Amino acid sequence: MGTRIALDAMGGDRGPMVTVEGAVAAAREFNLSVVLVGNEEEISKALKQHAATGLGIAIRHAPETVGMQESPSAALRKKKQSSIRVGLELVKNREADAFISAGNTGAVMATALITLGPLPGVERPAIALIIPTLKGQSILLDAGANADCKARHLLQFAIMGDVYARQVMGKRLPTVGLLSIGEEESKGNELTREAFKGLEEDQTLNFIGNVEGREVLTGAADVIVCDGFTGNIALKIIEGAAEFFTRLLKEELGKGLAGMAGALLARGAFKRFKKVVDYTEYGGAPLLGVRGICIISHGRSSAKAFKNAIRAAAECVDNKVLEHITEGIAVS
Amino acid sequence: MGTRIALDAMGGDRGPMVTVEGAVAAAREFNLSVVLVGNEEEISKALKQHAATGLGIAIRHAPETVGMQESPSAALRKKKQSSIRVGLELVKNREADAFISAGNTGAVMATALITLGPLPGVERPAIALIIPTLKGQSILLDAGANADCKARHLLQFAIMGDVYARQVMGKRLPTVGLLSIGEEESKGNELTREAFKGLEEDQTLNFIGNVEGREVLTGAADVIVCDGFTGNIALKIIEGAAEFFTRLLKEELGKGLAGMAGALLARGAFKRFKKVVDYTEYGGAPLLGVRGICIISHGRSSAKAFKNAIRAAAECVDNKVLEHITEGIAVS
Repeated sequence: MGTRIALDAMGGDRGPMVTVEGAVAAAREFNLSVVLVGNEEEISKALKQHAATGLGIAIRHAPETVGMQESPSAALRKKKQSSIRVGLELVKNREADAFISAGNTGAVMATALITLGPLPGVERPAIALIIPTLKGQSILLDAGANADCKARHLLQFAIMGDVYARQVMGKRLPTVGLLSIGEEESKGNELTREAFKGLEEDQTLNFIGNVEGREVLTGAADVIVCDGFTGNIALKIIEGAAEFFTRLLKEELGKGLAGMAGALLARGAFKRFKKVVDYTEYGGAPLLGVRGICIISHGRSSAKAFKNAIRAAAECVDNKVLEHITEGIAVS
Repeated sequence: MGTRIALDAMGGDRGPMVTVEGAVAAAREFNLSVVLVGNEEEISKALKQHAATGLGIAIRHAPETVGMQESPSAALRKKKQSSIRVGLELVKNREADAFISAGNTGAVMATALITLGPLPGVERPAIALIIPTLKGQSILLDAGANADCKARHLLQFAIMGDVYARQVMGKRLPTVGLLSIGEEESKGNELTREAFKGLEEDQTLNFIGNVEGREVLTGAADVIVCDGFTGNIALKIIEGAAEFFTRLLKEELGKGLAGMAGALLARGAFKRFKKVVDYTEYGGAPLLGVRGICIISHGRSSAKAFKNAIRAAAECVDNKVLEHITEGIAVS
């Protein structure tokens, strides 16, 4: 029996119509089966629009849904039958190998921590963000799970990111950089100066030292580690900058006849540009360090993004990411 | 006698040729005089290329220059006759009202702290960054002077930023935001949660709560406060993102005939775009909280950037920024 991926069918801004389309595409293209978790009636209705028979797609009914604005702790306490909870319990009970949700990020994270628990030795699971760079892709973690960190947490993030970069992103000897405010070891804040020493001492990592904010998008390191506060600020600024530059260029291109003609001709280029910048193309952000594969997708995810997230989850399973993280943490 | 601005003529990637051009333009356009500090021979040579007689431009010889890669502490110890040191001493001795340098940022900062010292009550002077937004301009501080901060430092940054936004940027009741990772008061790290309380209690500030990284470039707040580590990461990521998006668009626009034609037609738009993004247009980053006006300009500053920095420095003097900061700190 192949890999089974549980997908929160209710997650994402457009719900089952988009999640189901992504699941059907994944089941058709890849050698895996998908369990759609959520309101059975709605899922069945969405499934009927696709020739999905014989594709290995199952439904697991979950009567409750967590709203995007709902408090994660309230959802955790009150909604024991939510699609998020039910999906993660499938992973816990080994009825599924991985869980993907584009629902309320805080609720997915909190429920995964409680339901699955951390892998042996992992003190702080982290959200890993796949970012497009001039050289391809890098992974940045923690992107927001832990606002306050100790140096040893950053070392664990590096180990987990290194495993993901090797096993899923196909990087041979991933370079690991510490996000800081100067290249020299002496630069940075108390946290990064201490973390620098630990990263340098670890013999299993290809640590290249500090990387500055400017180098995040140039691809200076395959794995970039930082505390969750800094990582989340970085992520949101990159998102905001993409919006800012796109809007500015559109405004400028709209000025004058030549600009308008240019805008028309450049439309194809714009589309490709947006695609590179739009990280939903990369499927989602893995929550690394919990006892199970869990990928948090963006609320705006398209069917293609869900398909990509399902593939990424399957690759985590096939390449034994959990086992490699456990080993890596054990020897560190 | 009018406002006298001391300019480090040796600072910046292209030295006296560019700094002198900026000084001449400022002396011509604004009602002020400029003291060019640095190698007298080189400055005189550069001055001869401009019809600068009678413009109120003086030279103060400084035989030493601090290199861009030089250690700030070594420069401070060994180069007592550097253009940075001599220029800041002009301010200290009231022979000049302000100092501007595009030289080694660390050396300018360290020398300003030692030579001028902090204003009464200011615990940590901060670098303030003027950033372009969709609404105009905001000021973000600290952009890198203090890697580790306490909550009370962030409150002082807010007070200093508020004064600058009112007195120099012409904002009436500047909104003040705390850079954090969620809008609610409970979100953030230990530092921002504590700083939130202090900012909320201060009756002189128009505090609007947390702002997320995504909102920095939309202009959600006129004054954005954060610790110097986070601020420097933010600044460098914005710089890196501008380079990334410009490069990506150029590559995409270069693809195919339509793309190339589009690129040609869009060239004017590109130029305007770069101008908005290029923060050197805004003159430089004021170092707020020291006993004297000091503006740190970017190494790549153009003559126009130096002219703008000179104007900003003069506005700080005319609008009594130092006095207002001292008062603001005293009542907080």
